[in-house]
Amino acid sequence: MEGNFKFHNPTKLYFGEDAMGHLAGELKNYGPTVMLSYGGGSIKRNGIYDAVIAALKASGKTVVEDPGVMPNPTYEKVLEGCKLVRDNHVDLILAVGGGSTIDYTKAVSASAWCNEDAWQKYWVNQQNPSCQTVPIGAVLTMVGTGSEMNGGSVITNRKEGFKRGKVFGPALYPNFAILNPRFTMTVPQYQMVAGFFDIMSHLMEQYFAGDRDCTTDYINEGLMRSLIHSSRIAAQNPQDYEARANIMWTATWALNTLLKCGKGGDWEVHQIGHAIGLVTDATHGMTLATVSLPYYRHVMHDGLHQFVRFAKNVWGVRPEGKSDEQVAMEGLKCLEDWMKEIGVVMHCHELGVSEDNLEQVADAVLILPVGYRTLTRPEVVEILRESL
Amino acid sequence: MEGNFKFHNPTKLYFGEDAMGHLAGELKNYGPTVMLSYGGGSIKRNGIYDAVIAALKASGKTVVEDPGVMPNPTYEKVLEGCKLVRDNHVDLILAVGGGSTIDYTKAVSASAWCNEDAWQKYWVNQQNPSCQTVPIGAVLTMVGTGSEMNGGSVITNRKEGFKRGKVFGPALYPNFAILNPRFTMTVPQYQMVAGFFDIMSHLMEQYFAGDRDCTTDYINEGLMRSLIHSSRIAAQNPQDYEARANIMWTATWALNTLLKCGKGGDWEVHQIGHAIGLVTDATHGMTLATVSLPYYRHVMHDGLHQFVRFAKNVWGVRPEGKSDEQVAMEGLKCLEDWMKEIGVVMHCHELGVSEDNLEQVADAVLILPVGYRTLTRPEVVEILRESL
Repeated sequence: MEGNFKFHNPTKLYFGEDAMGHLAGELKNYGPTVMLSYGGGSIKRNGIYDAVIAALKASGKTVVEDPGVMPNPTYEKVLEGCKLVRDNHVDLILAVGGGSTIDYTKAVSASAWCNEDAWQKYWVNQQNPSCQTVPIGAVLTMVGTGSEMNGGSVITNRKEGFKRGKVFGPALYPNFAILNPRFTMTVPQYQMVAGFFDIMSHLMEQYFAGDRDCTTDYINEGLMRSLIHSSRIAAQNPQDYEARANIMWTATWALNTLLKCGKGGDWEVHQIGHAIGLVTDATHGMTLATVSLPYYRHVMHDGLHQFVRFAKNVWGVRPEGKSDEQVAMEGLKCLEDWMKEIGVVMHCHELGVSEDNLEQVADAVLILPVGYRTLTRPEVVEILRESL
Repeated sequence: MEGNFKFHNPTKLYFGEDAMGHLAGELKNYGPTVMLSYGGGSIKRNGIYDAVIAALKASGKTVVEDPGVMPNPTYEKVLEGCKLVRDNHVDLILAVGGGSTIDYTKAVSASAWCNEDAWQKYWVNQQNPSCQTVPIGAVLTMVGTGSEMNGGSVITNRKEGFKRGKVFGPALYPNFAILNPRFTMTVPQYQMVAGFFDIMSHLMEQYFAGDRDCTTDYINEGLMRSLIHSSRIAAQNPQDYEARANIMWTATWALNTLLKCGKGGDWEVHQIGHAIGLVTDATHGMTLATVSLPYYRHVMHDGLHQFVRFAKNVWGVRPEGKSDEQVAMEGLKCLEDWMKEIGVVMHCHELGVSEDNLEQVADAVLILPVGYRTLTRPEVVEILRESL
């Protein structure tokens, strides 16, 4: 345990096959105008859109349509959403989608009534809202980011050439989220598996930091073990409800601020992944997958005790007769085998990174002075090259 | 994962050595009159009382003194607290103490403005408040019950001859809780160790139920491993801040509704423990300690798979060449060894149970139709006899 901390997470979660039944009850807590934010047409094909609209109509709400939220949502799109909120005096933003959509609605909520340059204020200067914000609800259709129970909002500013995250406080967490594992089953295998790795990355980013004994790490190990078990099942049979349900629940707890209580974090894999995403527009979870093994092999000696613990407690590596380095490497080999088993992308050349744009990616990497080792720019390039 | 569930826990936690610094900020959210509920004089001896009074005075609050909350708080005391709340129009009840004090303040909060017989309504009929309730804050000085982040309220009605629990909803959770591990260090060793076992019992009561794969169990295993590790350190050196901090954090998460998400629970050990507490007024955690091993040996064959898992994942028992029964028994032997190591009471004759009052205890046991096996009354007597 390190230092002092606060935990406060007021998001109300409804979980299970009947979770949608609670939407009407929640809608009663808000005014008449609801903005419905979603991505492409998938929720129209799988019936989720119709179910949400039915609940909104039955509750007598005026619906403001806000479709077209893209993966890696852009600040330009955020500004369009802000205009919709202002023009219609929206009382609730209902996000129907995955992390991109929910991240986007937080950005709109904080920016719609902001009189300053919101990009500068939130994503560059990391300040907190000083204006009125708009309540958010979420119907989750894709698993991975944990955005349904946190304040994270990753936005891409194409004009400025940056993909950046801002972590808002509890006032911008979704007030409620509806988590029905069946809603996630129409997601294509590629996106599903990318989500699995995104979860694992959230767990590892928070695990690989600190050298004190901390209850948080024990909880984290439990979540990793559950994810590994269920993802193996789900990768083979995406229709396995139990596995998908456990993964959905793990994803929420992997990034709802619990796992940073009493310890630091790393998050450099996410910074490199964001840079790849900015340049290639590749799926977030896959960008993380391609850089994780090179990154962890690179910093392993700086946090060896934790990599040894990872090997033993998460993967069941037996340490007898082995050096710490051997145990730690064996743990990373287990991670690699699992990644191959569930089918993530192992090399970032498959995502569009090459020697031609590698320096451009490196330029976009934010180097954080945390974790077991603060990278230098040459090290970033080295890691990217090993990820190719 | 089983069925549908809701998770909503809005309690704000301030954790660490500087946590008390947040009290003044929290007090700003409430009206002028604060009732200060606490137990005996210990908080006056260790300085916590003075620190709380200083914050209340600096915030300009009128303080209504409500001392004398006893371990196993009585309904008679609850009614006295209710009168204080009504007579003084209390805006906030600030509990300074352990689970008994916080449980008591929830009971007062729900009963003060209740026009019905509160005992019948809440603890007998398990209904929810339909009246105005009073906000609660907590400064935790003893670890174990988890009452700082849940709606649990166990009250003893001496006239009726029952000790009963009621679980209130989030509206009666403490709005905020201040968790400074140093505040728990003046608790005598006996109470400290009883608290450790109370935590373990909360974990086991929720672990030993269900036969589906559930992320919740993986989290639970992590919490058990952390508790076992830190309690061994703290039992030897109660002044070890890191161990005490980890245990405090584990206790909160052991019973804040997370560990019942997606699965059932048992809670029969608590029912038998409550009956012992009613008859002997023994310390809660110790009553649980004396009955746990006889109880688990009794139901082990009905939930064998989970007892095997407990042995392997919590205690590291190696299963090779052993039957499931042997592995499960070995896990319970590890539990027994740990209990002896940290120094809990192993036999309930030490708490005042004997052949003379054993039937009286059995009469007071509420038999719950949940867990791996629903006991019969003769089985309750058998377990109590084995606990002697």
